[in-house]
Amino acid sequence: MKACIFAVGSEMLTPFRVDTNSLVITERLNTIGYDVRLKAVVADEVGELADVVQSALHWADLIVITGGLGPTEDDITRDAVARVLKVPMEVDERIVDRIRERFARRNLAMPEINRRQGMVPRGATVVDNPNGTAPGLWLEHGHTAIVLLPGPPREMKPMFEALVRDRLAPASTGAGLFRRVLKITGRTESDVDAQAQPIYGQWTTEPVPISTTILAVLGQIELHLTAHASGQAEADAALDAAVRRLEEALAPAVYSADGRPLEAVIGDLLREKKLTIAVAESCTGGLLTSRLTDVPGSSEYVDRGAVCYSNQAKIEMTGVPEALIREHGAVSEAVAEAMAAGIREHARTNIGIGITGIAGPGGGTPEKPVGTVCIAVIVDDQTRVRTFPFFGGREMVKFQATQAAMNMLRLLLIRGTA
Amino acid sequence: MKACIFAVGSEMLTPFRVDTNSLVITERLNTIGYDVRLKAVVADEVGELADVVQSALHWADLIVITGGLGPTEDDITRDAVARVLKVPMEVDERIVDRIRERFARRNLAMPEINRRQGMVPRGATVVDNPNGTAPGLWLEHGHTAIVLLPGPPREMKPMFEALVRDRLAPASTGAGLFRRVLKITGRTESDVDAQAQPIYGQWTTEPVPISTTILAVLGQIELHLTAHASGQAEADAALDAAVRRLEEALAPAVYSADGRPLEAVIGDLLREKKLTIAVAESCTGGLLTSRLTDVPGSSEYVDRGAVCYSNQAKIEMTGVPEALIREHGAVSEAVAEAMAAGIREHARTNIGIGITGIAGPGGGTPEKPVGTVCIAVIVDDQTRVRTFPFFGGREMVKFQATQAAMNMLRLLLIRGTA
Repeated sequence: MKACIFAVGSEMLTPFRVDTNSLVITERLNTIGYDVRLKAVVADEVGELADVVQSALHWADLIVITGGLGPTEDDITRDAVARVLKVPMEVDERIVDRIRERFARRNLAMPEINRRQGMVPRGATVVDNPNGTAPGLWLEHGHTAIVLLPGPPREMKPMFEALVRDRLAPASTGAGLFRRVLKITGRTESDVDAQAQPIYGQWTTEPVPISTTILAVLGQIELHLTAHASGQAEADAALDAAVRRLEEALAPAVYSADGRPLEAVIGDLLREKKLTIAVAESCTGGLLTSRLTDVPGSSEYVDRGAVCYSNQAKIEMTGVPEALIREHGAVSEAVAEAMAAGIREHARTNIGIGITGIAGPGGGTPEKPVGTVCIAVIVDDQTRVRTFPFFGGREMVKFQATQAAMNMLRLLLIRGTA
Repeated sequence: MKACIFAVGSEMLTPFRVDTNSLVITERLNTIGYDVRLKAVVADEVGELADVVQSALHWADLIVITGGLGPTEDDITRDAVARVLKVPMEVDERIVDRIRERFARRNLAMPEINRRQGMVPRGATVVDNPNGTAPGLWLEHGHTAIVLLPGPPREMKPMFEALVRDRLAPASTGAGLFRRVLKITGRTESDVDAQAQPIYGQWTTEPVPISTTILAVLGQIELHLTAHASGQAEADAALDAAVRRLEEALAPAVYSADGRPLEAVIGDLLREKKLTIAVAESCTGGLLTSRLTDVPGSSEYVDRGAVCYSNQAKIEMTGVPEALIREHGAVSEAVAEAMAAGIREHARTNIGIGITGIAGPGGGTPEKPVGTVCIAVIVDDQTRVRTFPFFGGREMVKFQATQAAMNMLRLLLIRGTA
């Protein structure tokens, strides 16, 4: 079945705003068999909104419109829909009564302007709004259902969820699109795809077809698996098997198939193995420690982090010998290893990590260009040190370095090497 | 003049993707007098795309369509536009020749499928693509210009910029929308609006009208000023005066009117005053030091940061007396101040900052609920300590605490108090 989503509001047509309601609505509709074919943001102009809604009316089974249901002249969604369906507007006194009660509960008189919210296209059914004055509306026209919801997410979401539960899901066959995301780091996109494509390429013609998209985001590759299944149980069976096949083929590069970010995966490993960690960072400036401590409960295993930006700080906070910096340079594997060993000894933790590099834009040399980062990871008696050539601007280099450091630690913990 | 923007591609209708091309296009169109009234993401289906383009044809002066110009069956933009304009498709041999040359330069034969990219609606003018095989197309129909551009931003952007320069800007009067953003922290949205609205409320009827939107984002309030002016110079004069009025009224809460984030404002102040800084963080986990070091050249003034997550780390890294923690608790103004003083002394910097708090979700008590954060800022012989009640989840509390700490420092530096 085909759906389209319209968001009404001129304020969402500036260069600063993106419409996120449609992402929530798309995800939920996909699970009950709707394919979202069109989504649009439309200005507060009744004719323009009516035109674009009209254009989808003959092919869409479901039209969801958010926003433009307030009490002011700018709120034109109800009028536009009445124009498209060629029905008159009528006052629904029950809506007016409910709004009046809502104001009365706060000891306020309903402003006369709010009566506008009681004007609805003939034939509309009211959808209660537990979090605001604007009621939602449900209309039907031929094979098309038209749903009007308020724009603010905290009003829209519970109303949409109630509509899915009470009206849309019961009418659906249960079939729909069901998704999984595999997150991978430490490999290139082309490398992952060369290995994964021969596997996932066969799934599009299976009884439960799965389509796969590869997406390169900073510091990681994602494989998005979408199963077209008759229901959740069938989808789970197919997706579980698919995830296992890809995890085996790409092992150990897949770090999560359940949405967890890398820092949460590290947190679970450290808790499970009862290990503690301390970090010494130079070019990443505290970002690694910050990401590790984004995880609730991380105080169980994170003891401390030293952001030793100046050479003197490296010497004083992690005990790196001054001579070592003089001999190898501050950005060197020797210094990274000494930082990791030093912070681990100071903190008396199982794990020490040292990161030193050139985040740019200045500071690069022909031998050590911007993006060069040395990372050392020590877990008890095992030490691994690597030098990476990262790309992009300062914040991109910082993020990639934290991904690489966590991945070195992950690999050392799960297979004893990195 | 009215514009609309369509992005073509089913892959952009998943719950994971937002269309960002339209933001870039909107910003640029606004400066040459186009008001973007509709933007949509459309699936790869020729009839559905044709319907929605058709719906805008009679009111739009400019229709920009990105994506769907590749060589495969899925690439339906050219066909949809031909259908809307009721013109036949024709082969443009010059396009085919150019694509063939492009392949030849890499010693490749052009695949036969790429001939599809030479099929264009009759009357189309080619727009060169310096970064790819898909040429852009320019068509006119009545008062409406229709522009077809490839989807990848690195191909789209230079082509769109060339079209603006060569075709759209010369035809424009120079009038358009010109913007400024004032960034404010340490105040509530309603508080800022109560003070600013009587000022900006008068500007909508000025000779150069300015409309103002207030936007609350985490840890800051933004005032977006949009001037409708006859050109850049007129806009600059009106916006400069408007920014000055608001800065005076809200002083010293406005920290930037030129796009700089708070960490860059701090960086410029420290460089100007030749001051150095060291930070001791507990609940923020390194985020403050990471933000300070996001600024290029920050190694000039950031000496070090201590992320002292455990009590033992606080004692060892910043010299906080164990008795002080026992007496006041780790989350206390006394401990925050001792952390700031200790790290400043260790690092021999002008400035020391100490942050200790409860980021949650666990660890709250009735006296010190989740979100309680104590922050101390010391600049030479001046010390300021405050306790804040932040809201939201762990990452939200962390971010708000770093905003508050930088703002305390900013206020101490510019007016000697915080």
